[in-house]
Amino acid sequence: MTNVAVLGARGRMGKTVCQAVTDADDLQLVAELDAGDEVTRETVAGADAVVDFTVPDATKGNVLAALAAGCHVVVGTTGWTDAGLAEVEAAAGAAGRNVIIAPNFALSSVLAMHFAALAAPYFESAEVIELHHPKKLDAPSGTAAATAKKIAAARAASGSAAMPDATAADPDGTRGGLIDGVRVHALRVSGLTAHEEILLGNPGELLTIRTDSFDRQSFMPGVLLAVRKVGGLPGLTVGLDHVMDLPGR
Amino acid sequence: MTNVAVLGARGRMGKTVCQAVTDADDLQLVAELDAGDEVTRETVAGADAVVDFTVPDATKGNVLAALAAGCHVVVGTTGWTDAGLAEVEAAAGAAGRNVIIAPNFALSSVLAMHFAALAAPYFESAEVIELHHPKKLDAPSGTAAATAKKIAAARAASGSAAMPDATAADPDGTRGGLIDGVRVHALRVSGLTAHEEILLGNPGELLTIRTDSFDRQSFMPGVLLAVRKVGGLPGLTVGLDHVMDLPGR
Amino acid sequence: MTNVAVLGARGRMGKTVCQAVTDADDLQLVAELDAGDEVTRETVAGADAVVDFTVPDATKGNVLAALAAGCHVVVGTTGWTDAGLAEVEAAAGAAGRNVIIAPNFALSSVLAMHFAALAAPYFESAEVIELHHPKKLDAPSGTAAATAKKIAAARAASGSAAMPDATAADPDGTRGGLIDGVRVHALRVSGLTAHEEILLGNPGELLTIRTDSFDRQSFMPGVLLAVRKVGGLPGLTVGLDHVMDLPGR
Amino acid sequence: MTNVAVLGARGRMGKTVCQAVTDADDLQLVAELDAGDEVTRETVAGADAVVDFTVPDATKGNVLAALAAGCHVVVGTTGWTDAGLAEVEAAAGAAGRNVIIAPNFALSSVLAMHFAALAAPYFESAEVIELHHPKKLDAPSGTAAATAKKIAAARAASGSAAMPDATAADPDGTRGGLIDGVRVHALRVSGLTAHEEILLGNPGELLTIRTDSFDRQSFMPGVLLAVRKVGGLPGLTVGLDHVMDLPGR
Repeated sequence: MTNVAVLGARGRMGKTVCQAVTDADDLQLVAELDAGDEVTRETVAGADAVVDFTVPDATKGNVLAALAAGCHVVVGTTGWTDAGLAEVEAAAGAAGRNVIIAPNFALSSVLAMHFAALAAPYFESAEVIELHHPKKLDAPSGTAAATAKKIAAARAASGSAAMPDATAADPDGTRGGLIDGVRVHALRVSGLTAHEEILLGNPGELLTIRTDSFDRQSFMPGVLLAVRKVGGLPGLTVGLDHVMDLPGR
Repeated sequence: MTNVAVLGARGRMGKTVCQAVTDADDLQLVAELDAGDEVTRETVAGADAVVDFTVPDATKGNVLAALAAGCHVVVGTTGWTDAGLAEVEAAAGAAGRNVIIAPNFALSSVLAMHFAALAAPYFESAEVIELHHPKKLDAPSGTAAATAKKIAAARAASGSAAMPDATAADPDGTRGGLIDGVRVHALRVSGLTAHEEILLGNPGELLTIRTDSFDRQSFMPGVLLAVRKVGGLPGLTVGLDHVMDLPGR
Repeated sequence: MTNVAVLGARGRMGKTVCQAVTDADDLQLVAELDAGDEVTRETVAGADAVVDFTVPDATKGNVLAALAAGCHVVVGTTGWTDAGLAEVEAAAGAAGRNVIIAPNFALSSVLAMHFAALAAPYFESAEVIELHHPKKLDAPSGTAAATAKKIAAARAASGSAAMPDATAADPDGTRGGLIDGVRVHALRVSGLTAHEEILLGNPGELLTIRTDSFDRQSFMPGVLLAVRKVGGLPGLTVGLDHVMDLPGR
Repeated sequence: MTNVAVLGARGRMGKTVCQAVTDADDLQLVAELDAGDEVTRETVAGADAVVDFTVPDATKGNVLAALAAGCHVVVGTTGWTDAGLAEVEAAAGAAGRNVIIAPNFALSSVLAMHFAALAAPYFESAEVIELHHPKKLDAPSGTAAATAKKIAAARAASGSAAMPDATAADPDGTRGGLIDGVRVHALRVSGLTAHEEILLGNPGELLTIRTDSFDRQSFMPGVLLAVRKVGGLPGLTVGLDHVMDLPGR
């Protein structure tokens, strides 16, 4: 049984994490802290691992305090700088405890990106479609931009030729945006949540990888995986793909 | 048994039409004409219906000649002007024969556009994706543009509110092109032929209509339908949707 | 402004309906009744329309009481017999008030079924896939079975030939179930809610119609449409397709 | 420049291979042999690599003869026994030449199967849909059965719990076939060629991997990859995944 404390426990993600930990047979929720609560050996109440879903301003302080309290830490809060990561890595080493920081805990999304990069060198064409609810403020999504960059890097590393595209006229700008040479298309449609579709094509064949994230629940398998693995991953690990031990090229 | 003559019989579409007529139990191929062949009562060899897949410069002359030869006519050649259509309508009336002109003989495509227009007033959001082979010169496809216009017209007629879209930043132009207020996205991927996907969304629900056209064969059911129906549709009929007797609103 | 009373207001669907009515600019929620509350002119509090999402045992009594109280009625409760429908129709006539009973308020689902029936005569092949969460007890879904039956009826009415299928060996039963001659496939996958995909094919072309229902929210546009239209649809109307005034064949 | 001889050069696959070799800048077609032609050092005309797309009865003899003639060999013919493979492995060792035998040269299909196996341990649910033209005699496809087996093996190796499925009633057999505990669904629809869709689901998220193979052309990138790599893969290699150097777990 692993004891878990949750920071940001009254936020939307934090509440979902508390519930997921409570529902897991091998985990025990021992503390729920939120803004204003100090993170100390006492308040984390014997936690083996602390999960932080707070805010960019607070997260680094939380992680350092949790390490000082003798805990491993799993972080879903974004906004980390290189300097902040280096500080955490040093503190983790000094404390003999481990930290996992991941910008994206959706397993399907992490896998899709990984597979797209593995497959890209074998195909002439690659384009990315991302589809979200219409309340989203920015386009494209960070995930779609990251996917395009991974595809571009994999193609560059394998010496892929430029993608075929005879488009001579596109007066309305329907061909989407170019990110590192990969076309990205963003849709905003009521009813959708967060979805991504990657198309890879050769003459006569197509490979499509699609992910659908329907709600916050979709991040829980990734969070729990990190909680279960953090004790065995020395130092600082950034990115769920490294936690998942996905075979690289 | 309906006797059929094909004009443009040595072109790619013409050859496919000749084969489809030959394969149909209720149709008989009686003449195959191409560039340089005159269209007369003799050369059409007793055809009840003439099918024209030639070139814009030749098609109007062919239709008038075929009417004069006592035939109904089915036309797949594009590039018609309003004046040309009026001339054909008058000639059809005088000859007591019928003409069907259709820019698109793909049943699935015609149905998809029709359904999109019927459904559009019931949804907050609508976007169109078209996907083609990378040798296509223009974007978006004519079909996608026509679909967007039909959706826009149906929404306007029913007094639909503007689609929700909170996008505040899209530096790369990933949100696609706006055609009559409807977002259209064009993909060019090796392996694809001609495909369209229409997404219609409300909070909590999505309706998606997709068509795939894999080869010229996909136009044959529409061509044969027109050949079989042209005798019963007096005067000039423009558009396969009218041949299909699809219920309007 | 239309005044609305909700019966079954503390149930899951009832709560969602109360919220949707409250959120609509042209509707006003005037009464929330649940089990144990009597339905009278006083308790419905001046409602023009009553919405019933209760249980099969209670619904007929509720409808008759609401008609007696001078209200139009919209019913989402299932389990109606022919005798019950006849009794309601007579009572509606006597009261000079109208009733809409619909087994399915998802607009996208009603449209998909309608479109599938319109399109079916034009295609050689048709198959239905339904995809649901793994807690669903029965397979296939009622919607998928109803879709298959509508497709079969439309094919029969138009004299369609049998679908091509050369399958000679299927030892594992992978070809799915036959409902009125139409293959239906049921998937149960974590993460899904309620989805249906209808494939219609000819040589060289495919038409796919897909609906995704992500949550109860998806039924609200259909419920509100019925509330807004019930005053103008004399007597008893069964099925949202008739409320939507979809053009038949 | 690699010299290539093709065996079965007048068959449908053989013709396509000859054309693909001719079109490749770094390959030269030096011999086209078919039934009745002997495979000798003279007839292969200086080929570095021989490609065999013949028939099960002939393929082993062809491979042994090609090895004796000093060539590497790429084989797409199916029907190999364990004894036959052992014999080829020994002959390759003795000749100091290499052999690649692959039952499936579609890159997208090989990648999809590989990715499905990598992803399967991270998801509660997995089901496979395969979609083919209606002239196919058997169901499910060999690829779908192989995919289901790979998913089952990956789940077993990682100690996955049984998939959730509350289905209590399925009178029509719509839940498809069970292959090693994985549900497989087979569709036969006009217009389709060969397609596969793998769904992997967790609460709140879905990962879908789809492949479309539209024609024989889709096998050429895999064949050419094998031709280019066979010189560097000592001995016998079975399966394109090993040629592609996909990272295993």
